[in-house]
Amino acid sequence: MDDLLNPLIQGDRRALSRAITLIESTRSDHRDRAVSLLATLPDRQALRIGLSGTPGVGKSTFIEAFGTMLTEAGLRVAVLAVDPSSTRSGGSILGDKTRMETLSRNPMAFIRPTPSSAQLGGVARRTREAIRLCEAAGYDVVLIETVGVGQSETLVAEMCDLFVLLLAPAGGDELQGVKRGIMEMADLILVNKADGDLLSTARRTVADYAGALRLLRKRPQDPEGFPKALPVSAATQDGLPNAWAEMQALTDWRRKNGHFDENRAQQARHWFMAELRAGLLARLDTPDARARLDQLGTAVARGDAAPAEAARQMLDWLTSTAAK
Amino acid sequence: MDDLLNPLIQGDRRALSRAITLIESTRSDHRDRAVSLLATLPDRQALRIGLSGTPGVGKSTFIEAFGTMLTEAGLRVAVLAVDPSSTRSGGSILGDKTRMETLSRNPMAFIRPTPSSAQLGGVARRTREAIRLCEAAGYDVVLIETVGVGQSETLVAEMCDLFVLLLAPAGGDELQGVKRGIMEMADLILVNKADGDLLSTARRTVADYAGALRLLRKRPQDPEGFPKALPVSAATQDGLPNAWAEMQALTDWRRKNGHFDENRAQQARHWFMAELRAGLLARLDTPDARARLDQLGTAVARGDAAPAEAARQMLDWLTSTAAK
Repeated sequence: MDDLLNPLIQGDRRALSRAITLIESTRSDHRDRAVSLLATLPDRQALRIGLSGTPGVGKSTFIEAFGTMLTEAGLRVAVLAVDPSSTRSGGSILGDKTRMETLSRNPMAFIRPTPSSAQLGGVARRTREAIRLCEAAGYDVVLIETVGVGQSETLVAEMCDLFVLLLAPAGGDELQGVKRGIMEMADLILVNKADGDLLSTARRTVADYAGALRLLRKRPQDPEGFPKALPVSAATQDGLPNAWAEMQALTDWRRKNGHFDENRAQQARHWFMAELRAGLLARLDTPDARARLDQLGTAVARGDAAPAEAARQMLDWLTSTAAK
Repeated sequence: MDDLLNPLIQGDRRALSRAITLIESTRSDHRDRAVSLLATLPDRQALRIGLSGTPGVGKSTFIEAFGTMLTEAGLRVAVLAVDPSSTRSGGSILGDKTRMETLSRNPMAFIRPTPSSAQLGGVARRTREAIRLCEAAGYDVVLIETVGVGQSETLVAEMCDLFVLLLAPAGGDELQGVKRGIMEMADLILVNKADGDLLSTARRTVADYAGALRLLRKRPQDPEGFPKALPVSAATQDGLPNAWAEMQALTDWRRKNGHFDENRAQQARHWFMAELRAGLLARLDTPDARARLDQLGTAVARGDAAPAEAARQMLDWLTSTAAK
């Protein structure tokens, strides 16, 4: 049994941190240990909430306020981030813990900054595995934050139970800026900054999104009225209890109808296939394989070998190597 | 030596047709024969021209007129189609040979309709291999037609020497409809229907596109003035000789500078890697592997096995099976 397992299950935050560092490692002995650790985790479930929103919408303030509210209700909250763009920028959306100062000092909360560099495929694996670790450590809610770039929303939607889109009060034109595909993934649209001078704009924006959501086909697994648009204010905390109540109502409904478990089962299958494909392709990533690839690739580039024939040779070589 | 090889090399069109049918087959004995045949093809080169344009722009009329002009200049012309959408629609953009009535009866030309069903990955492999077969059969120019949907342009750009975008005369607003990514792939933009009432609109459109192209960064492998926008009329054949002259000028330049061969070498490497990845993943597609996958997938879906652990088991199983 892994040394980390017991303290992790008992909710030790340092053990959780170390376990996440382990699954983030690309060293093959670390990977072996990570796979074994993941295979022995107890079957605890948190509510996995994906949260997306473009920069400037007030995502960290929202997480800070929403997370604090949940901990005050006695729930343990973990915050993870998916940021495929960090590969390029070297940046980190949660790197600066001071962004969520109150929550990061809260003993009921766990915040994990994004590592500064990762491959896109690796981001998905790492985050999914980190979610499992947080669940095993007894967290009740796992918030998975993502910046609204590229395919990160789809990635997050494929690993969470609820997908929440946080948007800013906006005019009708800006409404068009939200891609239809993203709208279709959302279970809840929260229009933030519904306070002070922006209150009436926010309310109008909520109505606009509610109208847009009605045009999308209702998902068979959801009760009447979902997906929903609601106003919230991370600053004044108005609307946060209501947003949480709606999330719970939707989750309860899906649990009762079996859709919750069905969704998780599908996601697990998907994750299994992704791991499998990655594992197969990893066979090309050994020093011997890379040398052979380079040799065959050069022959192909020179026109000395046909691509399909060279591929067949490489596959035969992999088979004979695996047999040894 | 394959029975098809000799008649194919001698330019027998029925042998070429049968060879393309062979590479399109998914039967594994056919695939083995196809790979062997491809490995023995002589090293003949045609000019590979990718041609994209949205429906209604007059693509078939253009190919008919342009292809006929080339055959009149003594060149043998093959026309292939890439239509990933045919998977869904069951349709076929070249299925109706009557679309190019003159060219399809021309002994110097060869037109291959798209098969009605195919997987996206399969479309790329098949088309690339069909190009090689056309080259071996002595064709001088291979036109690869694609409808402007999804990723088909990128796919075609990755397998041709020149990429031509055929567009209709349009107002300034419609200019915006051409995605920047597609513009950046184009070596030549041809504005069709530059005749009759549309002549002046077409000329204005050419000027608009020329302006847009100047804003894109010039590719280091190209001479001054490229990518270019030109007016053509498939109906009156005006501008076709000029378009062909520009294609030749660009090709000659790239040949002289080594960029032509460099591009082909890169494409061959890319193709090799794609074949290799497909070959690795094909190991999951045997009856035994599917049965095992199904078993593990069900365990994962039920929560009885962790995805990463199940993936490891499947990989171990594949290795032990390959060793037998």
